[in-house]
Amino acid sequence: MSEHTAFDWSRRHRTGLPEVALAEHKSSGQLRDIFLQHQERSVPLLITRMTREHVAELSDLPLAVDEIARTATYLAPEVSGSSTDVAIVSAGTSDMAVAREALVSAQFLELGAKLYSDVGVAGLWRLGEKLDELNTFRLIIAVAGMEGALFSVISGLVRAPVIAVPTSVGYGVSTGGVTALHSALASCSPGVVTVNIDNGFGAAAAARKFLT
Amino acid sequence: MSEHTAFDWSRRHRTGLPEVALAEHKSSGQLRDIFLQHQERSVPLLITRMTREHVAELSDLPLAVDEIARTATYLAPEVSGSSTDVAIVSAGTSDMAVAREALVSAQFLELGAKLYSDVGVAGLWRLGEKLDELNTFRLIIAVAGMEGALFSVISGLVRAPVIAVPTSVGYGVSTGGVTALHSALASCSPGVVTVNIDNGFGAAAAARKFLT
Amino acid sequence: MSEHTAFDWSRRHRTGLPEVALAEHKSSGQLRDIFLQHQERSVPLLITRMTREHVAELSDLPLAVDEIARTATYLAPEVSGSSTDVAIVSAGTSDMAVAREALVSAQFLELGAKLYSDVGVAGLWRLGEKLDELNTFRLIIAVAGMEGALFSVISGLVRAPVIAVPTSVGYGVSTGGVTALHSALASCSPGVVTVNIDNGFGAAAAARKFLT
Amino acid sequence: MSEHTAFDWSRRHRTGLPEVALAEHKSSGQLRDIFLQHQERSVPLLITRMTREHVAELSDLPLAVDEIARTATYLAPEVSGSSTDVAIVSAGTSDMAVAREALVSAQFLELGAKLYSDVGVAGLWRLGEKLDELNTFRLIIAVAGMEGALFSVISGLVRAPVIAVPTSVGYGVSTGGVTALHSALASCSPGVVTVNIDNGFGAAAAARKFLT
Amino acid sequence: MSEHTAFDWSRRHRTGLPEVALAEHKSSGQLRDIFLQHQERSVPLLITRMTREHVAELSDLPLAVDEIARTATYLAPEVSGSSTDVAIVSAGTSDMAVAREALVSAQFLELGAKLYSDVGVAGLWRLGEKLDELNTFRLIIAVAGMEGALFSVISGLVRAPVIAVPTSVGYGVSTGGVTALHSALASCSPGVVTVNIDNGFGAAAAARKFLT
Amino acid sequence: MSEHTAFDWSRRHRTGLPEVALAEHKSSGQLRDIFLQHQERSVPLLITRMTREHVAELSDLPLAVDEIARTATYLAPEVSGSSTDVAIVSAGTSDMAVAREALVSAQFLELGAKLYSDVGVAGLWRLGEKLDELNTFRLIIAVAGMEGALFSVISGLVRAPVIAVPTSVGYGVSTGGVTALHSALASCSPGVVTVNIDNGFGAAAAARKFLT
Amino acid sequence: MSEHTAFDWSRRHRTGLPEVALAEHKSSGQLRDIFLQHQERSVPLLITRMTREHVAELSDLPLAVDEIARTATYLAPEVSGSSTDVAIVSAGTSDMAVAREALVSAQFLELGAKLYSDVGVAGLWRLGEKLDELNTFRLIIAVAGMEGALFSVISGLVRAPVIAVPTSVGYGVSTGGVTALHSALASCSPGVVTVNIDNGFGAAAAARKFLT
Amino acid sequence: MSEHTAFDWSRRHRTGLPEVALAEHKSSGQLRDIFLQHQERSVPLLITRMTREHVAELSDLPLAVDEIARTATYLAPEVSGSSTDVAIVSAGTSDMAVAREALVSAQFLELGAKLYSDVGVAGLWRLGEKLDELNTFRLIIAVAGMEGALFSVISGLVRAPVIAVPTSVGYGVSTGGVTALHSALASCSPGVVTVNIDNGFGAAAAARKFLT
Repeated sequence: MSEHTAFDWSRRHRTGLPEVALAEHKSSGQLRDIFLQHQERSVPLLITRMTREHVAELSDLPLAVDEIARTATYLAPEVSGSSTDVAIVSAGTSDMAVAREALVSAQFLELGAKLYSDVGVAGLWRLGEKLDELNTFRLIIAVAGMEGALFSVISGLVRAPVIAVPTSVGYGVSTGGVTALHSALASCSPGVVTVNIDNGFGAAAAARKFLT
Repeated sequence: MSEHTAFDWSRRHRTGLPEVALAEHKSSGQLRDIFLQHQERSVPLLITRMTREHVAELSDLPLAVDEIARTATYLAPEVSGSSTDVAIVSAGTSDMAVAREALVSAQFLELGAKLYSDVGVAGLWRLGEKLDELNTFRLIIAVAGMEGALFSVISGLVRAPVIAVPTSVGYGVSTGGVTALHSALASCSPGVVTVNIDNGFGAAAAARKFLT
Repeated sequence: MSEHTAFDWSRRHRTGLPEVALAEHKSSGQLRDIFLQHQERSVPLLITRMTREHVAELSDLPLAVDEIARTATYLAPEVSGSSTDVAIVSAGTSDMAVAREALVSAQFLELGAKLYSDVGVAGLWRLGEKLDELNTFRLIIAVAGMEGALFSVISGLVRAPVIAVPTSVGYGVSTGGVTALHSALASCSPGVVTVNIDNGFGAAAAARKFLT
Repeated sequence: MSEHTAFDWSRRHRTGLPEVALAEHKSSGQLRDIFLQHQERSVPLLITRMTREHVAELSDLPLAVDEIARTATYLAPEVSGSSTDVAIVSAGTSDMAVAREALVSAQFLELGAKLYSDVGVAGLWRLGEKLDELNTFRLIIAVAGMEGALFSVISGLVRAPVIAVPTSVGYGVSTGGVTALHSALASCSPGVVTVNIDNGFGAAAAARKFLT
Repeated sequence: MSEHTAFDWSRRHRTGLPEVALAEHKSSGQLRDIFLQHQERSVPLLITRMTREHVAELSDLPLAVDEIARTATYLAPEVSGSSTDVAIVSAGTSDMAVAREALVSAQFLELGAKLYSDVGVAGLWRLGEKLDELNTFRLIIAVAGMEGALFSVISGLVRAPVIAVPTSVGYGVSTGGVTALHSALASCSPGVVTVNIDNGFGAAAAARKFLT
Repeated sequence: MSEHTAFDWSRRHRTGLPEVALAEHKSSGQLRDIFLQHQERSVPLLITRMTREHVAELSDLPLAVDEIARTATYLAPEVSGSSTDVAIVSAGTSDMAVAREALVSAQFLELGAKLYSDVGVAGLWRLGEKLDELNTFRLIIAVAGMEGALFSVISGLVRAPVIAVPTSVGYGVSTGGVTALHSALASCSPGVVTVNIDNGFGAAAAARKFLT
Repeated sequence: MSEHTAFDWSRRHRTGLPEVALAEHKSSGQLRDIFLQHQERSVPLLITRMTREHVAELSDLPLAVDEIARTATYLAPEVSGSSTDVAIVSAGTSDMAVAREALVSAQFLELGAKLYSDVGVAGLWRLGEKLDELNTFRLIIAVAGMEGALFSVISGLVRAPVIAVPTSVGYGVSTGGVTALHSALASCSPGVVTVNIDNGFGAAAAARKFLT
Repeated sequence: MSEHTAFDWSRRHRTGLPEVALAEHKSSGQLRDIFLQHQERSVPLLITRMTREHVAELSDLPLAVDEIARTATYLAPEVSGSSTDVAIVSAGTSDMAVAREALVSAQFLELGAKLYSDVGVAGLWRLGEKLDELNTFRLIIAVAGMEGALFSVISGLVRAPVIAVPTSVGYGVSTGGVTALHSALASCSPGVVTVNIDNGFGAAAAARKFLT
């Protein structure tokens, strides 16, 4: 057994979610150990928030890496969920990394998911064009940085529940994502819930629990 | 029509949620106008975050007031939802106001809801005793101030999704509720989502959307 | 001459704006002195951010008081500006105090101004209905608290420049107005400028300078 | 069409401002795609906040790069505006990057603009010498970091409206620019409006709207 | 001897400054005890930051109270310092309380001091008119709230050293005085030093030490 | 059984500490219920952070109230601990409330405790005089607001471990106690540990655990 | 004698703790000087928070380096303490660096110490399995980042006192460790004390003092 | 004349201080221009806060560089001040960079200055040993990071005025220097004044003004 990591193999049974490895703050050696234990037991694995060093140093492992999302998967399930489980809507091109982390994670958790990018509120007609299509989904994951106005706007327009993912995209007062986070929390449109800044995986995990 | 308030009568149809009046920062006169317009149309009304002055100055209106929850309702529906829709779990006696706002709101939104109070993590056996019962609910609203450890603990123990409501209960570094809020957002247990500090209504509104 | 206040009688000539008295942090006695000096010279005066005590203790003076706006004026000019100089658009009923401070100030500064209240983004159709009318104004003052999404939305829909006035309306993370302020500053819609939280007068003063 | 970027080609018509690409948080590949779509339609393009990597990796494209301003333009208009539209006044040598971003942006938006650098308040006579000249402009963009005293001082001396651009220049308590930002917002001189820290483009965009 | 307060009777000898009682957070009973011990030894006493309750409950004691400054003195020395020791310059009428605390304290510490009020930077000519007179003083205490631009401006115009006293006067981002404090600390004009927000006594105490 | 409070009667056995009631955020009615359940079982009770209203409204109960400490006890044990268990050292008269909360709590938890007040670092000789005596105690609880320099100084002078209790005493940058808290945490003197701002009880509870 | 460092050779005698060198913010040359002075006197030395550069540039010295803990020791004592002095419990693999700094430091200070890693609250059974074993220790050092729920949970389950070490592990709102720190300080479980973020040495130093 | 820098050649006459170049945020080319203009006029020059790149790229110029202080001087005066003008006292080895910036700056401004390093409060006897010597100086500049307790301690022990320079040395809550800054501002010892974090030059400039 690993000296540094005590796996919670029963978590999927207990909470409905498998354990997932957060790469940040871990060494490539620690990630390799984690991978080997999953490989030995043939248990699917999702790794998130990988650095370029992690990707390079683990390139010999049979992992499916998504460089934009900064994720790697092992034994990811064939997506069996309905294709209208989750719509992931992102405000700007720069939010793509987080939006794709949500997408990869949702699919790893066996949800059908589709990504709609660059639908910010500065050009509301772009969102308007997609509204009928968005209304066919059971749940919306909205991804936005800067001032995060997307969260209130989309929640006021669709019937599906909205999980907000604030991103750290921005500069000045929006550096680090707190402005977008607070916009989600203080939204004038009731029913919006939120996860931590940049936490695309967390939004997908919550979606998995809500859509059971 | 009101000079200061333009009602969004179609919101329920568009988003699945009725409009609700946040009393804070409004005068009793403004609230009275809002009530009269709902009464005239026989539309149900929920008012939240009332001050003692609001309650006293509106005591002549046919409103059902809950002084602990600081809410008033008009034409609240008979609760028709299943009694195992939502469990509301609160950490301490002091969180009762917010927990009851969530309860009143959930029932107003036609969800079956039950309140479990004083189940903090300093005495984990109290939570352990309730675990089988909590696992029969479709969704958990967890209400906690201070350090907000309840959010991670309960989410690691039950299968249902958890909506965290941080409260402003506490002093020193937990004054205002930011510590509890950040604990919910940074939870090591995936799948927790959160709403604004003290926003019991927001949690109920999100529950309404997720359980449709 | 006053012992505590050295008036800047030439400011209007130098900068285009008269001096205005901010009542907050001043005693009623100090305000009375200020009034008397203006009365003696027959110079118009605007007082902002009055407390209830100020209003009561100065009730013998020939001031036109607006209790919602918390302002008083003396020798306010007949409004001679075009009626389509400035549209003041506010997000919620609770933002009324600040919106009215902007209105009274704009009229004191000889601008034509009109107030559109309760046009928040949770019900976008309310804004949509007013869009043609709003597009007839030369400048928009947008007043919003909570998450301040109104600033980005309105700026993306109209041609006129937008001055944002964040308000301190809200609770939890929006307490004090910083969330709305940061939403204005980080807006994804270019061309929004902002003034201090609750500073309705400041927005009107800027409008006066921009519309010269 | 781009997979990651949905252009808002009608924005200029709707709001009077073209879309502009913020390079930060985008890859060079994404910027190249954006350029190619503009080139194909012969639409002018402004890119702001480029890193050295962006500049190097896009050096083969027909872009006019300003390394100090960290901008690139394509099909920038011949400046047709009056040469006294906008004066850009900066406090210190270190604020030059942001001041030049404002200059390039103003010219791209067809405004006549002139830059006055190193006019800080520690040596007020430098500002005094320029005062007559500054009073010939229709609008002033003031750029300052550290304590941002320039905003109040210049606004008290000229008749033209002042847009403040706080910069992130400074150390200790002025690190990141919040001190300069708050100085602009809390200015004792009425009529100052502000944009986000380091947002030279935003000030130019607002100027474009105000001077229409 | 007092049960709660151990006086440091030797401090004046050791550091050149007598002990002073900060009334805030103390009961009137505690202040009375402190007074009695000084009276018994005929030692001069200065009390600062008194509330209205303190003033009323101690009205029987032979204290010289300054209600604006919120101070009381006992056996205050005849001012023997030169009348050009210290000039106290305040930005606005609202800063008077802190400016007077500095004045009373300076005189208690045997410094000659004179107060110049309402000399803010929005009307620089008011400062200009006083410049020759200010240049006759050995030290300047500058008192300002809001954005605190006065600190940089005055320090760039006079030869005497400047001690900045930021005040908590203001609203929005200047609430509590941090913006003015940071302006003093980040001043572009070298040689400004600062004391805590609203600490008029601290500035006088420092002046006493510097002018020995 | 109480409807709102589920007591953790086994806590003393499990963790060595009895349950204690934090009065703040509770109504007098809730506190009365809590008292009655303890009275019924003859279990000792400590209530902390009582408001004046609590004290007045519960004055009929057989509680031993300490108005300075804002505590009440029921069946408090005769102090059996050694008289040199804990020295409580406070920096200023204004820190007395928190220092006494620590004293009452320590005695309720059966520790011998003694209070040394007004031993701040501005007059180090006061601390020096007490050093030999302080060195006879097994543990020191240091209570200080403002800049909290006492924590580092005392820890560098005595062999006993030091628990720091920062207080909310102060104004300007020390308002609320964060400066004192951070001084304790960042102390250059190794071995200092800290509890929440104003948490005298928490320090006593920790002392109880450490001295077992 | 060193020109830059005045050693406090008597500290061990005075306070029970030897001086320790914090490498961060020091040059390798300064650390080398410090080592040489200790070597000359044959005094044991512990260096903490070394960078990779420090380790490389001092590789010729007879130091025992722990690269995970980022520490080096010289003449470290044979551990003579009881093997059940201190249990160090860490929440996640990523907290290993800080947990090991605590371990190395405790052993350097002659405490028996054992490390239990990856015992986070998302899988409470892992902590439950270790509970009997943990109850044999005299003191627990708990190490956790993110939301720091471990501190409250473990303190509610064991009799030994708990010293919390928040870590800077996390992203978004937990970046830098403040969320974990505040969770420790605001813990609903009485008796938890805390040290600065990432301060594993500080926790060990406090343990040394408490277990004397 | 420089295109980017308008020198304030009269500042020394007007305020008693020469202009000084802050290297941070300037390019080496801009610094070179500044140097050349001073060389041409034979005016002394001090440059502060140089990066390693600045030092390397300007190594051909006749500048006297101090790599620890990160300063360069040109035509620095022979120190003519009394050798007991200023004592610079620093708390730890890590504060040396800022302490030396103060030393170089003081000497450049023709003050006699002497540096006392590593005199932190964790070992108060080190300060005690120097007390008689320190009492011979006219002014003390105290330099400290972490919790900044040195400021209060030294000010309570000496008669000379104390200028505090908080440094950014530390980690966790003291990262960036705000804790040390607030300790200086909130000092319980009256008469301490402070400058910006790491601003050794500012302290020397103030000393120059106070000692005129």
